[in-house]
Amino acid sequence: MDRTGTYHFATESYLLDFRGRVTLPTIGNYMLHAASRHAASRGFGFSDMSEKHTAWVLSRMAVEMSEYPVMPSEPLTLHTWISDVSRLFTSRCFEWTDAGGRTLGYAHSTWAAIDMATRRPMPLAEDALRVYLTDRHCPVVRPGRIPAIEVSTPGEPYRIRYSDLDINGHFNSIKYMEHLLDMFDIALFEEKEVRRFEIIYLSESRYGMPLTMHMADAGAGRYNMAVCHEGKAICRAAAVWQ
Amino acid sequence: MDRTGTYHFATESYLLDFRGRVTLPTIGNYMLHAASRHAASRGFGFSDMSEKHTAWVLSRMAVEMSEYPVMPSEPLTLHTWISDVSRLFTSRCFEWTDAGGRTLGYAHSTWAAIDMATRRPMPLAEDALRVYLTDRHCPVVRPGRIPAIEVSTPGEPYRIRYSDLDINGHFNSIKYMEHLLDMFDIALFEEKEVRRFEIIYLSESRYGMPLTMHMADAGAGRYNMAVCHEGKAICRAAAVWQ
Repeated sequence: MDRTGTYHFATESYLLDFRGRVTLPTIGNYMLHAASRHAASRGFGFSDMSEKHTAWVLSRMAVEMSEYPVMPSEPLTLHTWISDVSRLFTSRCFEWTDAGGRTLGYAHSTWAAIDMATRRPMPLAEDALRVYLTDRHCPVVRPGRIPAIEVSTPGEPYRIRYSDLDINGHFNSIKYMEHLLDMFDIALFEEKEVRRFEIIYLSESRYGMPLTMHMADAGAGRYNMAVCHEGKAICRAAAVWQ
Repeated sequence: MDRTGTYHFATESYLLDFRGRVTLPTIGNYMLHAASRHAASRGFGFSDMSEKHTAWVLSRMAVEMSEYPVMPSEPLTLHTWISDVSRLFTSRCFEWTDAGGRTLGYAHSTWAAIDMATRRPMPLAEDALRVYLTDRHCPVVRPGRIPAIEVSTPGEPYRIRYSDLDINGHFNSIKYMEHLLDMFDIALFEEKEVRRFEIIYLSESRYGMPLTMHMADAGAGRYNMAVCHEGKAICRAAAVWQ
């Protein structure tokens, strides 16, 4: 079994945004799909984890796209591999290439395993994961510290809906991306593109929890964002537009 | 080329709802995917239409699911075929089967071709479409009349966001489904299931158009819904829960 998993996706017209480009949440969904397949075929996928009453949770992710796929396009290729393993966290990288092998972007993600009942982090099966560790090149700056903008910016109320919930009954990690990007005015999408998006998941949220969404312009195309519950951030993110 | 197109989808854990079931909008997306592939490989897909400055628009759809796929599952199979062709509309049916060939549900959809500049309906290439016409069994009751509930029920305001827009800059047809289903309380999803969902798209909506969303309990598990702009319905739908 190759250490790196390689998956192909076709851009579909109905998944494109108003500019005819693949959206960042769709890119995020494809990455989760690839991560899920890569893990499943190597013995540490959703089902393997469920048997041990554990589940993978995405802790943080940084995506840097130099180019967004447009229609009509050749199939896109997504490569994913494990870049680090420690007691409680494992890192997974991604590289997007077009049909000619040209790189379109990279992503770096950090995952933890939690006990499905207690929702507490569990030690990873380090040895099993290390078998697939590679040092393949992934030039993404890892998610860094994001300022606590919620203390100084007003929040837009948000109510968690059915479609936001994942199989664990929590806010779906890609839906956070979608709702955060939806805070930006459409004019920004017409003129610029998100070159880097990073997100840090701090705690889980459930149906019925009232949330607020915050955004602050940090200058030079960077916006810091937060999703809060009762004033406490459950998710922080930053987008850099160019 | 077969008249019926057959496509396979794997249920992925990250696409499931909090009950571990495939959602109706995901089923809708898979159907658009299959429709898109079926049309493209028979010479009347997105690119073929674009060359003639036309585009397919979904006019109405009725979905009846006797069972929703759960995880872990064998790959799902979706069959799609053309069931009717007239001057301005063509009908496309769908059948979902599991790995054992058992039917999980059916759908019936009606499509029109529009001129991309004027947004007006265009006569269809009837002869080219008729080549693929089949009378395969599709026992779905076609979308019927849905009462104008917006005249008697208050609306919940909705602002169209970036993620709602499709490649034509209009409200994505599957996003309507998602937002309409999100009007239901989570308790209903815990106890019942949508056995039938039908939707009628009346006019296009764009970014910045203020909308209102309406829902009325019609009894016996049926709810009528509407999405309105300035008091006029742009979309009507109905869900039957069992």
